[in-house]
Amino acid sequence: MPETVVAAPSLIDKLEASRTAARVLAQATTVQKNRALHAIGATILRNADRILPANELDLANARENGMSEGMQDRLRLDYRRLEALEAAVVHIATLDDPIGESVRGSQLPNGLNITQVRVPFGVVGAIYEARPNVTIDIAALALKSGNAVVLRGGSAAENTNRVLVELLQGALLEEGLPSEAIQTIDEFGRDGARALMQARGYVDVLIPRGSAELITTVVTESKVPVIETGAGVVHVYLDESADLATAVEIVHNSKVQRPSVCNALETLLVHESAAARLLPPVIARLRESGVIIHGDERTRALVADVVPAVDEDWSTEYMSLDLAVRVVADLDAAMDHIHKYSTHHTESIITNDLARAERFLAEVDSAVVMVNASTRFTDGGEFGFGAEVGISTQKLHARGPMGLPELTSTKWVVRGSGQVRG
Amino acid sequence: MPETVVAAPSLIDKLEASRTAARVLAQATTVQKNRALHAIGATILRNADRILPANELDLANARENGMSEGMQDRLRLDYRRLEALEAAVVHIATLDDPIGESVRGSQLPNGLNITQVRVPFGVVGAIYEARPNVTIDIAALALKSGNAVVLRGGSAAENTNRVLVELLQGALLEEGLPSEAIQTIDEFGRDGARALMQARGYVDVLIPRGSAELITTVVTESKVPVIETGAGVVHVYLDESADLATAVEIVHNSKVQRPSVCNALETLLVHESAAARLLPPVIARLRESGVIIHGDERTRALVADVVPAVDEDWSTEYMSLDLAVRVVADLDAAMDHIHKYSTHHTESIITNDLARAERFLAEVDSAVVMVNASTRFTDGGEFGFGAEVGISTQKLHARGPMGLPELTSTKWVVRGSGQVRG
Repeated sequence: MPETVVAAPSLIDKLEASRTAARVLAQATTVQKNRALHAIGATILRNADRILPANELDLANARENGMSEGMQDRLRLDYRRLEALEAAVVHIATLDDPIGESVRGSQLPNGLNITQVRVPFGVVGAIYEARPNVTIDIAALALKSGNAVVLRGGSAAENTNRVLVELLQGALLEEGLPSEAIQTIDEFGRDGARALMQARGYVDVLIPRGSAELITTVVTESKVPVIETGAGVVHVYLDESADLATAVEIVHNSKVQRPSVCNALETLLVHESAAARLLPPVIARLRESGVIIHGDERTRALVADVVPAVDEDWSTEYMSLDLAVRVVADLDAAMDHIHKYSTHHTESIITNDLARAERFLAEVDSAVVMVNASTRFTDGGEFGFGAEVGISTQKLHARGPMGLPELTSTKWVVRGSGQVRG
Repeated sequence: MPETVVAAPSLIDKLEASRTAARVLAQATTVQKNRALHAIGATILRNADRILPANELDLANARENGMSEGMQDRLRLDYRRLEALEAAVVHIATLDDPIGESVRGSQLPNGLNITQVRVPFGVVGAIYEARPNVTIDIAALALKSGNAVVLRGGSAAENTNRVLVELLQGALLEEGLPSEAIQTIDEFGRDGARALMQARGYVDVLIPRGSAELITTVVTESKVPVIETGAGVVHVYLDESADLATAVEIVHNSKVQRPSVCNALETLLVHESAAARLLPPVIARLRESGVIIHGDERTRALVADVVPAVDEDWSTEYMSLDLAVRVVADLDAAMDHIHKYSTHHTESIITNDLARAERFLAEVDSAVVMVNASTRFTDGGEFGFGAEVGISTQKLHARGPMGLPELTSTKWVVRGSGQVRG
């Protein structure tokens, strides 16, 4: 008797299954989706003894392959981190369901009733690096917004993600939802990622999350719609009227609180009339935390031991304890600098001058513009979105931290009684 | 003495100028923009004696090059059409300015005030075919929404568009706005269109409008964000309970009122229990207007002289007086057919059954879903948007007819009083 060989599903089989699951999920009620989210939270904690050893295996491989400490930290799960993930998933269950919301509508003169309502995208693709928490965050946000999701995580987290996706699928089945609504294509490696970028008709939107290189590859090579996330050459501008204590604390927090992330400060601009008053204490405080200053000539005239800044510094996202500092003539010069070098992520002005604050907020063209606040607040969690899919730095569809509404599309519903066009 | 040679601006010069103009236009007040729109309306009518001869020249060339009658009709301007364009531009001036609108916002627990506000995209690119009215429509919508626009019209309309853009620029200058806010790159031909698709950092969104081939080229070759518009394999489904007179009139209007456009009906589906009652009178009425029926076997069993439909018919956008007709077992079979063959533009159900109407509206995944209405209503003008940039058939950013809000992005404005992240 010949052996029965069951072929593993091909990538296209998986994508077809995602589309079918998406049709079901789009019609799921808020109650069903919330129950599934609670089941996900519970299964994560209940199966810590399966998740953590798989994660240990990934970490062991990572160490062997010489992964940096910072990357290892992002890859690592422990029980406390699983508890935080469970809390995030349960929090997402408490948020308003965006699906079915009426965005706008009207009764036309001919009696037709038109309403624009929120609907799921359908199938969301995500390509990201070796951070297993992203697997849970994106799956939970996609579920709540009625989307099927196809995940391609970094291969360094493959063992962890395999267990997590199994658990996620089990939770879906428990609540009567199709397990194919959450799938990984990690087993197809880089070919899988490439195929996802070409999958027109299968993937409604593709979200890359990770390094600038990863994002650029996805944005330039994809044939499916992409939401660009990420890179942040973030500026703080200290205006003439900036309060000293506020300037010192906001610059320090923006740079030092977590230097390796996209909303961390990279370039500090200072009004020339305030440079002598503000720069020495601001820099002194930064240096307490080990920040290395790369300054222009005027900065170096005011503060000792500053590394001379070169042109490249103005466009560098250090993601480290380095900071570029430049003295500028006025608000216009600051905004011109930002216009030239910013990646349009987050910029903050520190000032007590109302007119300048309003000009900065109106004229600086970035996803998030701030007055008298740390740039570290550009974050879905801080904004109250539960978790975030990423921070969009493009202008199409979503801009800034992406929560549930950003994972939806709309459709127009037209109700008539026999109208024809004259 | 050597002659002074003034070089024509290069494409990159023009794109740089667009970016600079966009910064000014983003800060223009509603009053300024409305005045410029009124100036545009006035200059179009006042300069009919410049526009119409240029259009005559394009038409003469078109006839020489064997352009079809339908295409010539789209290319043709006359005084009545100029009056309609003027009326559309003046109507756009009366619409709410989307810029500055608060979309959502909240006060965070730490006292930070966050507001998501509408802002212009910046620079909008448009690639379209030889329809000079599109030049005016898109320029007017872009202006009202605070965007600079770079236009690449079909080369067959080059003379008309050159005059129109000159007049548009004159109107901007008259009102103190930068003329570079409306530019054409027609002089660079196909190379210009290709460069526009690659212009990351210069063009914030690119909108192709025209044939399926044009749209596919732009969507697949662009490195800048694109909004896909257009192709419509549009369905009407006659449910078991459809009223006969309603069915006859809606199908006729959807197919015949203007067969060459994207919201015209292409495939008619009929419930098997109603086929004998509905199909003969529906088809008789269509045939009065010269419609050729391509039907499946069951249609041919009910009606004489039907062309046998082949598989290809179900995915064809005829854009002519041809109609594919299929008898289906029930609502689910109709929705499965639509799911398989639709381009997700517009689908309408004709029914008196409330539950089926609601299922169709909820489950059919298209930009516009209708009950008891002609598919010809999917149109920015009909929806009250003044004019339209196009009809988006993608799910990202905009879906369905695109008016002013669809030409905007958002940004988050964060107002603090010294907050730092803990």
